[in-house]
Amino acid sequence: MERIDDLQISGYRIIQDTDQFCFGTDAVLLADFARKTRSKRTLDLCAGNGIIALLLAAKTDTPHFTLVEIQPGAADLARRNAALNGLEERFDVLNMDLNDAPSVLEPGSFDVIVCNPPYMEGGRGLLNPLDAKAAARHEISCNLAGIVSVCGKLLRYGGHLFLIHKTSRMADILIEFRQNKIEPKTLRFLHRTRQTAADLFLIEGTLGGGKEVRVLPPLILYDENGTLSPEVKQIYRS
Amino acid sequence: MERIDDLQISGYRIIQDTDQFCFGTDAVLLADFARKTRSKRTLDLCAGNGIIALLLAAKTDTPHFTLVEIQPGAADLARRNAALNGLEERFDVLNMDLNDAPSVLEPGSFDVIVCNPPYMEGGRGLLNPLDAKAAARHEISCNLAGIVSVCGKLLRYGGHLFLIHKTSRMADILIEFRQNKIEPKTLRFLHRTRQTAADLFLIEGTLGGGKEVRVLPPLILYDENGTLSPEVKQIYRS
Repeated sequence: MERIDDLQISGYRIIQDTDQFCFGTDAVLLADFARKTRSKRTLDLCAGNGIIALLLAAKTDTPHFTLVEIQPGAADLARRNAALNGLEERFDVLNMDLNDAPSVLEPGSFDVIVCNPPYMEGGRGLLNPLDAKAAARHEISCNLAGIVSVCGKLLRYGGHLFLIHKTSRMADILIEFRQNKIEPKTLRFLHRTRQTAADLFLIEGTLGGGKEVRVLPPLILYDENGTLSPEVKQIYRS
Repeated sequence: MERIDDLQISGYRIIQDTDQFCFGTDAVLLADFARKTRSKRTLDLCAGNGIIALLLAAKTDTPHFTLVEIQPGAADLARRNAALNGLEERFDVLNMDLNDAPSVLEPGSFDVIVCNPPYMEGGRGLLNPLDAKAAARHEISCNLAGIVSVCGKLLRYGGHLFLIHKTSRMADILIEFRQNKIEPKTLRFLHRTRQTAADLFLIEGTLGGGKEVRVLPPLILYDENGTLSPEVKQIYRS
């Protein structure tokens, strides 16, 4: 079932299919993490219905976004979302396997890549009976090594990859980044409360960057009383 | 100049030489991080005056500690600290280059290794005119790759390496761990306040462990009003 939600920014709206994967807080946090970096050309890998590019289009003056999404249904939604918000000129939506992107897109041509990839390793965890949801949650059509390798080819020298992923895979991610010359630079851990381990983390890597990591203050999602923290509320509003 | 400080645990005291490197909060936090892991044989690399092994001797029932320290003056202090606290039977202090440790100590024989190494890369930063202080702060006589390689040889399979280091070198550290089959398992970031980036972090790696990282709740050192946080106070007391 499709529904249209108001994004509460610049009057933008988004069509989502509730039988597929609907965007969540992770997309909002990743877009916020990436928004301060200026970019002429931004690539969104595993774009889904286009939520991250939509948020960045609303929050930045980046003139062009390329969205790569393997699921035909999600790619169709992303195209309709671009049209719904008058972004046909700023958005290119490509319905393709991201592993083929380096043969279609110009190498070294993106200032920024954002990616909210499937979190679960292929074969791990229960697969969702609805294929589109399963592909969005599991590494069925792409895996971490493939994604980072593609980013290493498509980023310009000095360009930035912004990713959100499960903390449990942080070692793999830092190693894949380094192997592809995308030096891990800035990390931020997301804790449900101040007393809990971090489920997810945000990471920014720079192609050809110097070897120096910064870990930002923790991002605490909920206050002691279970309400959304002031910082997360502020991110949703800004 | 030498002075004797009370460690406020089990009546233990420590001789420190104020012309050399005196222990700080990082030693206390590392000992606390490592104390819950049971061990029959613990190795302290870059042991200095022996503070971490002293704290672990006071807080655990580990029967034996081996301390490796390259500076003759610091190794002498560590020996005298063992004697001062009646720990001659539990402590072996070796005045040697840690890179030679695998040829002296039995490979695969330690349950736990703790290390509070020099934080600054050799050649980086100003060198302290006092050689002993410089060696304690800079990677003059040992470097990260050497330390982790030695740990990979001396830990038993399933044994644990506990390290504290600068967050800026986190990527290097995770990569060195993985290369030496010490899988990064648990990390905790130390933030001066809730609003500041993490200067230091604690990491535990397990030789032959599974690929799954946990990031514990942040350890905030100071409250908003600049006083030591309740958790750090509790660590000092416990």
